[in-house]
Amino acid sequence: MSQLLERYATVRRLTESLAEPLSEADCQVQSMSEASPVKWHLAHVSWFFETFVLERHEAGFRPHHPAYRVLFNSYYNGIGEQHPRPQRGLVTRPGLAEVLAYRRAVDERMAALLSRPVPDDMAQRVELGLQHEQQHQELILTDLRHLLSCNPLDPAYRPAGPLAPPPEVPLRWLESAGGAVDIGHAGPGFAFDNETPRHRTWLRPHALANRLVTQGEWAAFIADGGYDDARWWLSAGWDWVRQQRVRAPMYWRAEPGGGFSSFTLRGRLPLEAQAPAANLSLYEADAYARWYSAQHPGQPPVRLPTEFEWEHAAAQAGARDGGFLDSGALQPRPAADAPGLLQRAGDAWQWTCSAYAPYPGFRAWDGAVGEYNAKFMVNQYVLRGGSCATPRSHARLSYRNFFPAEARWQFSGLRLARDLD
Amino acid sequence: MSQLLERYATVRRLTESLAEPLSEADCQVQSMSEASPVKWHLAHVSWFFETFVLERHEAGFRPHHPAYRVLFNSYYNGIGEQHPRPQRGLVTRPGLAEVLAYRRAVDERMAALLSRPVPDDMAQRVELGLQHEQQHQELILTDLRHLLSCNPLDPAYRPAGPLAPPPEVPLRWLESAGGAVDIGHAGPGFAFDNETPRHRTWLRPHALANRLVTQGEWAAFIADGGYDDARWWLSAGWDWVRQQRVRAPMYWRAEPGGGFSSFTLRGRLPLEAQAPAANLSLYEADAYARWYSAQHPGQPPVRLPTEFEWEHAAAQAGARDGGFLDSGALQPRPAADAPGLLQRAGDAWQWTCSAYAPYPGFRAWDGAVGEYNAKFMVNQYVLRGGSCATPRSHARLSYRNFFPAEARWQFSGLRLARDLD
Amino acid sequence: MSQLLERYATVRRLTESLAEPLSEADCQVQSMSEASPVKWHLAHVSWFFETFVLERHEAGFRPHHPAYRVLFNSYYNGIGEQHPRPQRGLVTRPGLAEVLAYRRAVDERMAALLSRPVPDDMAQRVELGLQHEQQHQELILTDLRHLLSCNPLDPAYRPAGPLAPPPEVPLRWLESAGGAVDIGHAGPGFAFDNETPRHRTWLRPHALANRLVTQGEWAAFIADGGYDDARWWLSAGWDWVRQQRVRAPMYWRAEPGGGFSSFTLRGRLPLEAQAPAANLSLYEADAYARWYSAQHPGQPPVRLPTEFEWEHAAAQAGARDGGFLDSGALQPRPAADAPGLLQRAGDAWQWTCSAYAPYPGFRAWDGAVGEYNAKFMVNQYVLRGGSCATPRSHARLSYRNFFPAEARWQFSGLRLARDLD
Amino acid sequence: MSQLLERYATVRRLTESLAEPLSEADCQVQSMSEASPVKWHLAHVSWFFETFVLERHEAGFRPHHPAYRVLFNSYYNGIGEQHPRPQRGLVTRPGLAEVLAYRRAVDERMAALLSRPVPDDMAQRVELGLQHEQQHQELILTDLRHLLSCNPLDPAYRPAGPLAPPPEVPLRWLESAGGAVDIGHAGPGFAFDNETPRHRTWLRPHALANRLVTQGEWAAFIADGGYDDARWWLSAGWDWVRQQRVRAPMYWRAEPGGGFSSFTLRGRLPLEAQAPAANLSLYEADAYARWYSAQHPGQPPVRLPTEFEWEHAAAQAGARDGGFLDSGALQPRPAADAPGLLQRAGDAWQWTCSAYAPYPGFRAWDGAVGEYNAKFMVNQYVLRGGSCATPRSHARLSYRNFFPAEARWQFSGLRLARDLD
Repeated sequence: MSQLLERYATVRRLTESLAEPLSEADCQVQSMSEASPVKWHLAHVSWFFETFVLERHEAGFRPHHPAYRVLFNSYYNGIGEQHPRPQRGLVTRPGLAEVLAYRRAVDERMAALLSRPVPDDMAQRVELGLQHEQQHQELILTDLRHLLSCNPLDPAYRPAGPLAPPPEVPLRWLESAGGAVDIGHAGPGFAFDNETPRHRTWLRPHALANRLVTQGEWAAFIADGGYDDARWWLSAGWDWVRQQRVRAPMYWRAEPGGGFSSFTLRGRLPLEAQAPAANLSLYEADAYARWYSAQHPGQPPVRLPTEFEWEHAAAQAGARDGGFLDSGALQPRPAADAPGLLQRAGDAWQWTCSAYAPYPGFRAWDGAVGEYNAKFMVNQYVLRGGSCATPRSHARLSYRNFFPAEARWQFSGLRLARDLD
Repeated sequence: MSQLLERYATVRRLTESLAEPLSEADCQVQSMSEASPVKWHLAHVSWFFETFVLERHEAGFRPHHPAYRVLFNSYYNGIGEQHPRPQRGLVTRPGLAEVLAYRRAVDERMAALLSRPVPDDMAQRVELGLQHEQQHQELILTDLRHLLSCNPLDPAYRPAGPLAPPPEVPLRWLESAGGAVDIGHAGPGFAFDNETPRHRTWLRPHALANRLVTQGEWAAFIADGGYDDARWWLSAGWDWVRQQRVRAPMYWRAEPGGGFSSFTLRGRLPLEAQAPAANLSLYEADAYARWYSAQHPGQPPVRLPTEFEWEHAAAQAGARDGGFLDSGALQPRPAADAPGLLQRAGDAWQWTCSAYAPYPGFRAWDGAVGEYNAKFMVNQYVLRGGSCATPRSHARLSYRNFFPAEARWQFSGLRLARDLD
Repeated sequence: MSQLLERYATVRRLTESLAEPLSEADCQVQSMSEASPVKWHLAHVSWFFETFVLERHEAGFRPHHPAYRVLFNSYYNGIGEQHPRPQRGLVTRPGLAEVLAYRRAVDERMAALLSRPVPDDMAQRVELGLQHEQQHQELILTDLRHLLSCNPLDPAYRPAGPLAPPPEVPLRWLESAGGAVDIGHAGPGFAFDNETPRHRTWLRPHALANRLVTQGEWAAFIADGGYDDARWWLSAGWDWVRQQRVRAPMYWRAEPGGGFSSFTLRGRLPLEAQAPAANLSLYEADAYARWYSAQHPGQPPVRLPTEFEWEHAAAQAGARDGGFLDSGALQPRPAADAPGLLQRAGDAWQWTCSAYAPYPGFRAWDGAVGEYNAKFMVNQYVLRGGSCATPRSHARLSYRNFFPAEARWQFSGLRLARDLD
Repeated sequence: MSQLLERYATVRRLTESLAEPLSEADCQVQSMSEASPVKWHLAHVSWFFETFVLERHEAGFRPHHPAYRVLFNSYYNGIGEQHPRPQRGLVTRPGLAEVLAYRRAVDERMAALLSRPVPDDMAQRVELGLQHEQQHQELILTDLRHLLSCNPLDPAYRPAGPLAPPPEVPLRWLESAGGAVDIGHAGPGFAFDNETPRHRTWLRPHALANRLVTQGEWAAFIADGGYDDARWWLSAGWDWVRQQRVRAPMYWRAEPGGGFSSFTLRGRLPLEAQAPAANLSLYEADAYARWYSAQHPGQPPVRLPTEFEWEHAAAQAGARDGGFLDSGALQPRPAADAPGLLQRAGDAWQWTCSAYAPYPGFRAWDGAVGEYNAKFMVNQYVLRGGSCATPRSHARLSYRNFFPAEARWQFSGLRLARDLD
């Protein structure tokens, strides 16, 4: 079996294994318009291979089902119409069994293609399809968690095991002199178009925290009235807090006896003081930094890092990653103490203060795949790193994740930064 | 087996048979907030027996599952909290199998109770539970139809068979001298509290049409620009038409080649000119009457009947019913011609111009079942008769169905009336 | 000067006198879409005379300004397009001076017409115009009150004078044997089409309260948790209370030291315990009746009267009216004690439980004036009597005012009723 | 008279002169929640001097009216509560005369202060107040234009005079080698905190268009179906176009005979082919660039400039400005042809592709004035230059204006850019 086919099979199998603990009903429901049903994810990633690989490279291509072209197209206007996103959960037929059969049919046709010599452009498209499927692996888990959280019975995706309480990791500042640095993907290996071109930018002297902000630290922010004090918040964030009555990170619930619990993929659990806070909006992350500065009056004010500062720090030797999907933890875990940058990637995505924008000289890919990233470059902010739901082989130092400032259903946390001058 | 137990078993079996052609996904999804998932219906009617019969009459009662009391309570504040209605579809666990097990457990406990002598008040509660379940049998079908209609693949609940085109039935006016008439349920036999007390009212001389308005007649209303002409519409109806861009009855779709198709429980089908028009709002029914009057300038103007005129006419000898759920048609069918009142009940509910209000001297039932009907007596209008989704044994001449003026997802049609003086 | 011209001049002058204490800004602003700017009212009632009298009866008619036909048409589709209702307040030009000039021009042309012999049909139209203008006199005050209430400075339309606290009037029940009664306008004299035809209806034995529910009684309902207890409320009312967070009648404000103040046309004032409660929705009025019943367990339950019971009682000898616009009070006042029906009309409109529907045999007026009342006969409820903002000469025993169940910005109160058998 | 007092008087007089052609009603109404009434602007800028200068520097300070502190506070949480923004238009009292009296009172107190020696920090605050008032001068005109545009009579703020059709200015590309450049305000003279600190950034070789995109060019975009083709649009922009049914720039109206008119401060006028297109959203500006690129297939693709490219180009010798408020044109005018950068500032603000973000090393001002700019640094985009409604003395090369991507009621146009490598 070719290496590409082997990788193809591995990634596809993982997707299906994520759905294994789920009923047909679990896979069917769409709990908010930003999320998609698991069944839809299972079908859409297959549609991606069918549309962008088979249709182009398979001799005598015929679609698996003519209606799927529309039903499982996410947002590619270049391919044609799309079933409206907020109505994905209303399509009960094809059922889960038919979607799994669709997956098998695509897999067989892909296996036939990949068993023969694969031209470069096709290999790139297959790799794109795999990277794409890995993104949806993360979304399967985050979307499912949202669905399960709507159930008053607090069902667990997988049961929780015992967790040893780890020692505390003190916050340390890792300094950088800044100056002219090069940012972006420089090959070889796969990257999305939005990670290119590699280009020069100018950084001021600055420092990044060695680890992510923890749940214990976040609880202190709440206890100090952080959600009630306009001073810490961007104006749009303050409007959001009051209109949505936000009192804590998403999935946290104040318990009658005091303190908070969190609804996780392992059911409702107590907080873990040393584990990273996650499911934060950019507004919350930004407010925390302003509050933190006021708690440390003699020190320089802190802020979110830029995505360039992040990438520059992450490329330094000695940085250590946190846990990815492969660890099986399914939630952000405390860091083990060590020198240097901890939780570089894994555990929780890290909000940056950088708006999601094209790099200087950016060119979107040609054709419909050019819609993959470029058309979203407005009103979103960049997150870096990766999370406990990200496959390790999907993470990259140049990887740019992006979400609107108020999005919280991803594993989104924060690392503090500050200027040195 | 006692007669009551036999009837209990029959009604319960029918409910389950309605769900038989459905997948777990079909039973899970809530396609709009007014509708409920089939799975929820299956559970809620069992909750009704558990709460209003078992809890009261079973020695050593213990709930089947403590969370079900809230999850499957529809709107009884007297019982306690309710899971929010628009979020019924988000509860994927308990799954369908657990809900069916819940049904079986309730059935076994009910069978044990009903195998012993049954006191009168308990028999009345059982009967109420059965009438209640019959209402939900109709809702299972109308809610499911809405869900399936959201699927661009037009799936059929049951496949369509051939239908012989029937002869046309001319519209004839059946006259009544009016005067003092008695209205409402007068026992014996079951009735809801809202059908009582039987009371006197005064009717003017009037006439009712012998049959319902047909799809062919409705198509003529459309062809004449009925949805574009403010003259025919109540002010609130005209706002509704323009805001919702209503162009035809619900489930009708203009076809490229001209004419309309209709999405039915048997899939998408062409119109049947002689079959009753259904899935109409009160606004549409009312507008049709005004348009019809303008098409017949020499004749007295027509209008919707009052619920009192309807009940008076329905009680006359010789009236014939249309088709109920028992017929298996699953859609309104043309009437066979005959003298007298046709389609008295069955085929399609008939909008009246009567606001849903308490009868003079009305008293709601005591206790939480008093919430069954009384608290909805505002901003709704009465429909009379019954439809192709109503079990025949559920229909009654004194039965008052009620919906808001804009509701259209029920089989709701109309019969014309006019004054004689 | 002819009697009709004299009446015309009197009504028109009163309208302008209502606007006298107001600035151009006060007259310009529309504070919610249900309300209209005073300037618009001033223009619209003139448009009514221009459109329905001058255009029909004036030789060589030419419109005062061609754009006014659309700008000041309220809802008459038979006349043509209308400027969108929620945007009435955005039209700053023509200014107030131009609108007053428009009034004068219409008055001069009307005076010329009315100085000559007036045919019957024209006299009827003039009378309709005057009745219409009187309706808008009330709306000028209620709409203005809403606008001023949005100002945190609590400005008074007219300053408050001292008010002597009156003695309490005990609630007494006035009984009626019911039976067949005739309801509706029977001429001569003006009536709207919706008050006809006079027709027979059947009343059960019942009793009406001798006076309206007072502010003191309403405060007791609040103190007893009336707004927090689902038992008293219609289902739609309970939804409304929770969604709108209703805690008291409109314009009431809980004061820091306990108790309530009310924002009136005379500024913010303390409650008057003996004065009628007003600015209630139908939901509140209905809930009060259910709560009152529970406070008086040995007595028959109370409810809102039907509009037929009200009209029947109001026609009995000895009934006394409360205060109208002519009294200058500008707010509901306590009744002076006396036998028989008090506050028959005046002080506050009285919600009935009757849906606004056509009387049996109703025919709307011909032509565009047929839109005056008929097209609103859905989803509204009838109020009877009249208020402290109603001109006395405008009130009639057969008069049917109507508003949606949640409307509260009118002077809307309640009188209790109960069955006798 | 001191120079500062003279400048104070000049700026304040200009504000009042802008309101001179307006009635009290024109000054009262708020036509959308983003806009404010002219009367509110007149008061708020006075509140700014009262709160940030008088309260701090006047001996024995007493507020002009205690309620004004809340009524006329825009968004400064550090000062206290604010009257809700969407309800500014509901406050009819104080009236226009009282607000003008408020202005005079503040002016007298400021004159007294400024007639004595003025310490530096106070002078800076006065300058800030004047810059602030200049911003509101522009808003008075743009907010008023929106209000007048809601009037179907198309009233003109000032009547239009004859306009000579100018010659066409060909689009030329002005190249820059890029490299390390310094951006931001470097004193002396006033600047907002968001223009600092001056800092280094890195520019790639690029070119900017010599002039703004014209109305004639925009009409060609429309004629080519620009608003109907998803290819040109950001995803959020395409959603916006379809949900808002956008077909042309704001204030443009398709005329029955073909072509467009535009509602301007001089009433409704035909387009001027050579004048800059304005009242564009960022989405439209961005879409135009993508469309333009497709029309010029052999050339490098165009895009919006970054704010850094813009500032770098604007600082080059020979750049010429367009027309400011001082010109009296009140609308963007065609450029006269010349070498170099035309319409550098004036005529229309120029969208950049730069998200509004803090400059590296940014520190907001201390105290409540720190809320002036910093808390808005999310979800907005930077515009550079200035417009026909900007006072010339208010424009600066380092000036950063900012609005959400969909905002269109400002004079917002675009200048194209492209990469050179």
